[in-house]
Amino acid sequence: MNDQATPSGEMLAPVAEQITIIGVGLIGGSFALALREAGADCRFVGYGRNEATLVRACELGITDRYSTSIEEAVSGSDVVMVATPVGAIDAVFNDLADVIGPDTVVTDAGSVKQSVITAARNRLPIIENFVPAHPIAGTEHSGVEAGFASLYHGKKLILTPLKETSQQAINKVSALWSMAGASIEIMDPQRHDQVFAATSHLPHILAFTLVETLYRMEQKDSLLRYAAGGFSDFTRIASSDPVMWRDICLHNSDSLLAVIDGLQDGLDTLIDAIKQQDGKKIEQLFKIAKDTRDFKILNDAQPKETE
Amino acid sequence: MNDQATPSGEMLAPVAEQITIIGVGLIGGSFALALREAGADCRFVGYGRNEATLVRACELGITDRYSTSIEEAVSGSDVVMVATPVGAIDAVFNDLADVIGPDTVVTDAGSVKQSVITAARNRLPIIENFVPAHPIAGTEHSGVEAGFASLYHGKKLILTPLKETSQQAINKVSALWSMAGASIEIMDPQRHDQVFAATSHLPHILAFTLVETLYRMEQKDSLLRYAAGGFSDFTRIASSDPVMWRDICLHNSDSLLAVIDGLQDGLDTLIDAIKQQDGKKIEQLFKIAKDTRDFKILNDAQPKETE
Repeated sequence: MNDQATPSGEMLAPVAEQITIIGVGLIGGSFALALREAGADCRFVGYGRNEATLVRACELGITDRYSTSIEEAVSGSDVVMVATPVGAIDAVFNDLADVIGPDTVVTDAGSVKQSVITAARNRLPIIENFVPAHPIAGTEHSGVEAGFASLYHGKKLILTPLKETSQQAINKVSALWSMAGASIEIMDPQRHDQVFAATSHLPHILAFTLVETLYRMEQKDSLLRYAAGGFSDFTRIASSDPVMWRDICLHNSDSLLAVIDGLQDGLDTLIDAIKQQDGKKIEQLFKIAKDTRDFKILNDAQPKETE
Repeated sequence: MNDQATPSGEMLAPVAEQITIIGVGLIGGSFALALREAGADCRFVGYGRNEATLVRACELGITDRYSTSIEEAVSGSDVVMVATPVGAIDAVFNDLADVIGPDTVVTDAGSVKQSVITAARNRLPIIENFVPAHPIAGTEHSGVEAGFASLYHGKKLILTPLKETSQQAINKVSALWSMAGASIEIMDPQRHDQVFAATSHLPHILAFTLVETLYRMEQKDSLLRYAAGGFSDFTRIASSDPVMWRDICLHNSDSLLAVIDGLQDGLDTLIDAIKQQDGKKIEQLFKIAKDTRDFKILNDAQPKETE
């Protein structure tokens, strides 16, 4: 039940009676599972390019039914959640344009917001009904089997609404994500793309690049068998979905290139200090990093193996 | 008891009756705790520059006694374990030269081996008694309070003996580390320094540099509050001891600069692909990384939050 009782006990209408999930993977699947676990009394319809995935989503109890026709999949839905990689969103919006009802709220879960907003402006017939969103949650696993109900518990959900977005649409999407366990924050889309280029996209790109670099070295000098505890942790995010991260690189290029540039400056400073055997400088750089990590970034309780 | 029974039940002499630990931090302290837990019937003597640490090590049951005189600290010891940051080892060897007995085995736990071997050749009077070693274990914590008995369980211990090192000394150090839970591997010191530049030093340097880069950005654009699950894991090793890692940079510069160079090549390739919006190339690089991570690197059982 997602009927909400007012203080006087009067029942309100459920937030949504039917939600279409386009792209039933880790993010879309977990969204449905989280709402079900929270008692949302609504139907979930799956849509996507791979029918086997859509069938599996029904078997796993994520969706109630699916369709390979987008028209049929969105028919009767209050909300359409687009949870595909960012690179597919423009085409999905294009397909939605012809079939979406005038009252259906469209939202997404993309890790980049400016390019998704541009796609929405270009494609969607009623921009007031579009609510751009980004849940700050994930694992290194992907696909329909990877979803779980608690993925969003205690996590942030960033909304980057357009000036045209209706308050009603914002309220509906916020209510669903709150029910899924997330806490809502509003951000400017440009700032969103800059902040997450630094705190999420850059670390992922670095992990991929580090492991790809070691792959090149591995060919001539078998070394990965010596990669121990800390390395495993440090590179876990290099197991993330290459297509999702390819799309993020393509769609958030400006912000990402800027932060890669900042990192290269940092590396160049360190290289110079190493070449000059400037221990004081090296220690200072590492000390800043340690203090930042220890005091500014959420830590886990347990120490982990590092070397 | 570290007396060992032969198959016929005859008792052999203990591996060591007294071990001096120079530098009673995470690595040296855990070594003593591991041997005690394994039942080693030997005394541990602490030595280091900070008397408060030496006192605390006795309180914590790591050492039986300590001395602020190196002569007194090593007197009567079968084995001296040097577990300081790599940058301090040359000075420690210099101090040991005048006070070490002719039968005392000297070993270290430094993350770099070629420079430690050079220091040993320059300083130690009986090079046959020196056994260079590197336990592939650690946490992001450091100091006397950070030690624990199981740190080395199931971990590798790399020995990089000199051609002069006596087999007896190698056997003694191997026996102690085996008792501490580690499995012994022999490596060439140059190869050691190259392999660990890639699999350990480079990831640590990258984590420090990433966090230091974000620190610079944080000054103008508060963003670290958005650093979620994967970021915390990815940057955990940036909490490691700045002095230890400064010394590794200074003492393994050639190998480290070579692998940083390899990483910069990887970043440059990615930057070009992003600038050219070459999705195929980006996906290919990330796919190589994901496959390498998934199939070549020891994984933890549980998925972790990443974004």
